[in-house]
Amino acid sequence: MQKFGTSPIDDALMERLSTYGELHPMLKRGIFYTHRDVKWILDEYDKGNKFTIYTGRGPSGNTHLGHLMPWLFNKWMQDTFGVNMIFQMTNDEKFLFKDLTLEDTTSMAYQNALDFIALGFDPKKTKIIVNTKNIEKLYPIALSVAKKITFSTAKAVFGFDNSTNIGSIFFTAMQSAPAFLPSVDAGKQVPVVIPCGIDQDPHFRVCRDVAPGLGFPKPSLICCKMMPGLSGGDKMSSSDENATIYTTDTPKQVKKKVGRAFTGGCVSVEEQREKGGNPEVCAVFKYNYFMFEHSDDELNEIARKCRNGEILCGECKQCLTQKINVFLEEHQDKREKAKDVIADMAYDGFEW
Amino acid sequence: MQKFGTSPIDDALMERLSTYGELHPMLKRGIFYTHRDVKWILDEYDKGNKFTIYTGRGPSGNTHLGHLMPWLFNKWMQDTFGVNMIFQMTNDEKFLFKDLTLEDTTSMAYQNALDFIALGFDPKKTKIIVNTKNIEKLYPIALSVAKKITFSTAKAVFGFDNSTNIGSIFFTAMQSAPAFLPSVDAGKQVPVVIPCGIDQDPHFRVCRDVAPGLGFPKPSLICCKMMPGLSGGDKMSSSDENATIYTTDTPKQVKKKVGRAFTGGCVSVEEQREKGGNPEVCAVFKYNYFMFEHSDDELNEIARKCRNGEILCGECKQCLTQKINVFLEEHQDKREKAKDVIADMAYDGFEW
Repeated sequence: MQKFGTSPIDDALMERLSTYGELHPMLKRGIFYTHRDVKWILDEYDKGNKFTIYTGRGPSGNTHLGHLMPWLFNKWMQDTFGVNMIFQMTNDEKFLFKDLTLEDTTSMAYQNALDFIALGFDPKKTKIIVNTKNIEKLYPIALSVAKKITFSTAKAVFGFDNSTNIGSIFFTAMQSAPAFLPSVDAGKQVPVVIPCGIDQDPHFRVCRDVAPGLGFPKPSLICCKMMPGLSGGDKMSSSDENATIYTTDTPKQVKKKVGRAFTGGCVSVEEQREKGGNPEVCAVFKYNYFMFEHSDDELNEIARKCRNGEILCGECKQCLTQKINVFLEEHQDKREKAKDVIADMAYDGFEW
Repeated sequence: MQKFGTSPIDDALMERLSTYGELHPMLKRGIFYTHRDVKWILDEYDKGNKFTIYTGRGPSGNTHLGHLMPWLFNKWMQDTFGVNMIFQMTNDEKFLFKDLTLEDTTSMAYQNALDFIALGFDPKKTKIIVNTKNIEKLYPIALSVAKKITFSTAKAVFGFDNSTNIGSIFFTAMQSAPAFLPSVDAGKQVPVVIPCGIDQDPHFRVCRDVAPGLGFPKPSLICCKMMPGLSGGDKMSSSDENATIYTTDTPKQVKKKVGRAFTGGCVSVEEQREKGGNPEVCAVFKYNYFMFEHSDDELNEIARKCRNGEILCGECKQCLTQKINVFLEEHQDKREKAKDVIADMAYDGFEW
């Protein structure tokens, strides 16, 4: 928050949010912890000016649990407020920034979209943008954004240098475009809120800076921490395959990966029975905290038992494995069904 | 040629070109004077691998004679070789680089296209691209180009700095895209030749550099000098309104503008009768040379009479005014008729 200059989601905002529906555990637990202008979005909503939710994915690989986590929160937002949602697939970005072909990133966009749809977004109110497919709509908006951003700004915000390719330099304009698309489509000022990982804030800081000059409202942001990796790292990442659970993993793979997870346990059973474990540093506990244990009572009970040495890491791992596998079994089923509706969810504007 | 490293159109190339049809006066007079790989284009043509012509326009204002000049040469190329032609309207470029809206540049693209069509390009073999309209086709190609160009290169070639907007930095990728579009559409290596003003060479130098890495043939270039202004400047430019003849000018406006042209005459009639004028520096003579007097004999006769003081500037101006007005009367008529076919000439690929 200090680095980016965002506001905390404080008690007052939390209380206000709770008036629209039961707070999502990710809010109560401080996983979604910081924001920009969410109060304004709610003010507009209260006046009858519904916002549109905008989030997205850079399709550089298979979907893992770290990607699903904020999408689940997006789903809560849509359910709670009954609003439209845009999901942007930046297949151009991942082509420009990674050693991938455009065919790779486009086919990955399809795979990732199946996971997104599987979470149950309202198919009538949710539209998926693929940058290269929806470029006719996005490009004019991106141009107007790009005209307002100097290389100097892009360099300062994203750390570009002389060796950066000119597509990467332009790209942030493409990520800004969907924030203004609802206003362009509706022909009026439509508020937009972007629930996303805090790592995406730089793009939207730039986007917010240019908005007034283009006659659009500044998009609001609500940002989350990154889902940790199973090996104890700060962020679940595909660069650490064994510590990353993909949505298409088999129960056996999940069991193996969770089995190797970094925990807060002691070196021997005896020691742990005596001294207890440390849930603060335990990846297994974090997975319960972030996604798999919605009951606060249950979560506190796990922590208490761990600290007292009443349960060992093996039991906890087994328990989490089962929760993940129950979730994935259902998810994989919905993911298959998503293939039937994905074409209908391609962006073609909303009714305003 | 020294600055850009292009090759001269020498006698051997001129002779070879003359085997395909009567040489255009702009070749004989050295107006189109330099090239890159035109011999290769002809070799491929001789083998039955027809090239596609690609040229374009940055629609920042009304069409003037300086724009028509190279287009007339393009028309000769198409007629002589019977090949396909792509005409790109960079409405994005002029929005990014000038103080114009995208609506301005898009409506100007339409106006400019009427002038292009009026010159009589084969409607079945000629397709007009408007960057924002054909972006779905161009963007993936532009991305692949952009990934290969660093900011360092763009800076060196186009003189960008930290204050340049990120759209302008990206733009050269959009200008490269049509050079590769025929190969993408045809699914085979299609040679492309770009007849254009020498000022466009930097874009295509970059384009040629990236081509092999993308698996496309390097586009060939054939470049012309810039059409001079009526006030004696090196380049006809809209920034000098009174020295610029637009395709929509009335006979009266043309008369007035030519009447004010810079000539090689003397201060008094007496002096000119005695000492003669200097056609070398005369804008009126240059207009005959560049566009309005196709007969070399006639042109030499004008120069001779001028040097001997046999004709005065007033007569020459009157004579050029009439030639231009005859040309424009017919052009304006064809320009009106172009409105009926412009929609059919929108780019949608060629039959290969």
